[in-house]
Amino acid sequence: MTADAAGTSRIEAFSDGVFAIAVTLLILEIRLPHAAAEGRLWNALLALWPSYFAFVFSFFVIVVTWIVHHDLMRLVRATNRPVQLANGCALLYVTFIPFPTAVLAANLGGADLSTAVAFYCGTFVFGSGVFNLLVETIRRGQLFRPEVDPQTISRIRRGFRITFVVYLAATLIALVAPWLALALNVAVRVYLLRIRPRLAPPAPN
Amino acid sequence: MTADAAGTSRIEAFSDGVFAIAVTLLILEIRLPHAAAEGRLWNALLALWPSYFAFVFSFFVIVVTWIVHHDLMRLVRATNRPVQLANGCALLYVTFIPFPTAVLAANLGGADLSTAVAFYCGTFVFGSGVFNLLVETIRRGQLFRPEVDPQTISRIRRGFRITFVVYLAATLIALVAPWLALALNVAVRVYLLRIRPRLAPPAPN
Amino acid sequence: MTADAAGTSRIEAFSDGVFAIAVTLLILEIRLPHAAAEGRLWNALLALWPSYFAFVFSFFVIVVTWIVHHDLMRLVRATNRPVQLANGCALLYVTFIPFPTAVLAANLGGADLSTAVAFYCGTFVFGSGVFNLLVETIRRGQLFRPEVDPQTISRIRRGFRITFVVYLAATLIALVAPWLALALNVAVRVYLLRIRPRLAPPAPN
Amino acid sequence: MTADAAGTSRIEAFSDGVFAIAVTLLILEIRLPHAAAEGRLWNALLALWPSYFAFVFSFFVIVVTWIVHHDLMRLVRATNRPVQLANGCALLYVTFIPFPTAVLAANLGGADLSTAVAFYCGTFVFGSGVFNLLVETIRRGQLFRPEVDPQTISRIRRGFRITFVVYLAATLIALVAPWLALALNVAVRVYLLRIRPRLAPPAPN
Repeated sequence: MTADAAGTSRIEAFSDGVFAIAVTLLILEIRLPHAAAEGRLWNALLALWPSYFAFVFSFFVIVVTWIVHHDLMRLVRATNRPVQLANGCALLYVTFIPFPTAVLAANLGGADLSTAVAFYCGTFVFGSGVFNLLVETIRRGQLFRPEVDPQTISRIRRGFRITFVVYLAATLIALVAPWLALALNVAVRVYLLRIRPRLAPPAPN
Repeated sequence: MTADAAGTSRIEAFSDGVFAIAVTLLILEIRLPHAAAEGRLWNALLALWPSYFAFVFSFFVIVVTWIVHHDLMRLVRATNRPVQLANGCALLYVTFIPFPTAVLAANLGGADLSTAVAFYCGTFVFGSGVFNLLVETIRRGQLFRPEVDPQTISRIRRGFRITFVVYLAATLIALVAPWLALALNVAVRVYLLRIRPRLAPPAPN
Repeated sequence: MTADAAGTSRIEAFSDGVFAIAVTLLILEIRLPHAAAEGRLWNALLALWPSYFAFVFSFFVIVVTWIVHHDLMRLVRATNRPVQLANGCALLYVTFIPFPTAVLAANLGGADLSTAVAFYCGTFVFGSGVFNLLVETIRRGQLFRPEVDPQTISRIRRGFRITFVVYLAATLIALVAPWLALALNVAVRVYLLRIRPRLAPPAPN
Repeated sequence: MTADAAGTSRIEAFSDGVFAIAVTLLILEIRLPHAAAEGRLWNALLALWPSYFAFVFSFFVIVVTWIVHHDLMRLVRATNRPVQLANGCALLYVTFIPFPTAVLAANLGGADLSTAVAFYCGTFVFGSGVFNLLVETIRRGQLFRPEVDPQTISRIRRGFRITFVVYLAATLIALVAPWLALALNVAVRVYLLRIRPRLAPPAPN
């Protein structure tokens, strides 16, 4: 194994760790109110539905982001300083997610719903921006594996730019129709899972 | 190493991270009350027995789930999109466990015991459901290693379906006999640890 | 790589994750009191010395435990069910450590010092017990690598049994001389770091 | 793979875990005040700017530290006891970072700003000290890979000693000009990212 390959494996291990922790910390936001009256535990558990909703939503956001990251890094043969820093920005986004999730859960049933959803969706605009940055940094450094054909790279770049525009639109829509904005966010992730990068068939060895 | 194998190793690394974090976060639920009077620390520590009980119970639930997951993934040669998503659902279950654990600990000595145990056991019904989904997704994608014989797969599937039924029964029993439901949950895990998948002996190389 | 070797690497990855998280969660116990008066931040930071002491002490306890675990697992060629469960018990001990650490920090300057230190030291008696169990389980399953000579195994077993006795003594001493008990705990870890298992020199290949 | 190489990979896995968790725990310090009045969520989110600032600053501090650690460990062929302990001290520093980050966030707009920044910067003096210790320990144990030329080692050692002095200066400056001290901390990290260790070109095989 060359030093370069080792570099890629450690950046993946570090990233996997951050993804795994961010996704697991989400549960810390669900707390049972201590003041629950005796014999009313079911009611207290049901009243937490905004927390469950935000937990499941953000869980799948992070899992989809992990799948996208994982598919992207499989195409990369080595890392350099700019890629390490761009990947750092991507992880900054991932570690930030539990906070807007808590904001969303605390306001799902309240007067600040549209503000909370706009803040939540705005986080994804930032996230999409740094993933676009990551792809461009890999391309500039000519760090895609030689067997990755140029069309695959074009397809990924176009897909990432389209999702950026959709996230931006969803954030604006959130101000007037928050539930529609959330639905749009689900749709864009289904789309993201479909632009699967395909490697050229491995050479027989 | 082919790209497929790399895919399996990263999904295992991510899963291992989630299991490890979920199991370690359990300790955050055990907190010493600040209002403990001087000279009464032993009493305060002893009064936390419901927290210790729930901690140890959930710890072994997660460790057994990790062993089952680990044994299952050893039989898999590659992953695809549906397996990644089904595995995501399995991890959603694992990250959720600290919350019903806290609910259990807070109600072990109280009037809501049966509700708390039913909620706790209900989590395992969901967990068993997603593990059944994971096995079916692997089988549909024909992603079991070629050396895994069909009988092993049948045995695993039957085992997983039986445990699903037992978890469901335990949840119903919890409503009338919560401690019996917990005992049944221990028994089913002992059984789970015994349906060990066996690989065909590796070919000499 | 055979399935067995993969098994060892995943149990190590899972264990490493648990160790890394337990050691990092310790910092969550250090909290600045919100009621600190303006212009008195230095005083507030200095008043937290019991938290710093407990943090550093438990940090090195976990790091030494990780080193011992790491050295032990290097001698193991594969895992079986009993080893997985004994390793689970070892990890239960590791994940529990943040709680007695918090108890220690909260009582270092108070009337319950000896109780808190005894509880803290008692945790290490349990920990040493499960590490003895882990070694015996590996030996019974004949899972030490063939190149590990019997004298090394004897040396490790004797070392682990001696440390168990010392931890037990330290716990009793804590009831009358808590600081001496803590010093004894430092000494036993220095000793533990010295019983380095030595592999036979690798065959030239 | 020899036992030595396995040793290096597990110390890297453990370190990666600690870095990934420390960086992710930072988000737990950002909390929305519960007493926010209805319709004023934007104001409440904006008022948290000191938390965002401290979060982003410490995030990049940890990422840069991870990159430096990662580049350093790539040059190491094996570990011994002193390196394991020196690496433990480096990780103690990393796990401690969330606490001074919380102190910084709580005091960015208050009367204790210079104290908080000095405490924050003082943490980096300690961190730089243990990284100097780690490099010296690796050098004493003659654990650098044979292909690492002596000039690279000299360059790293000189760079680490210079940064130590700058961190010390920044801590003193913080007492009179806290924002200048923070700017100096950014500058030193940009410099650190530039003393890239370069391996001799790998021999053709």
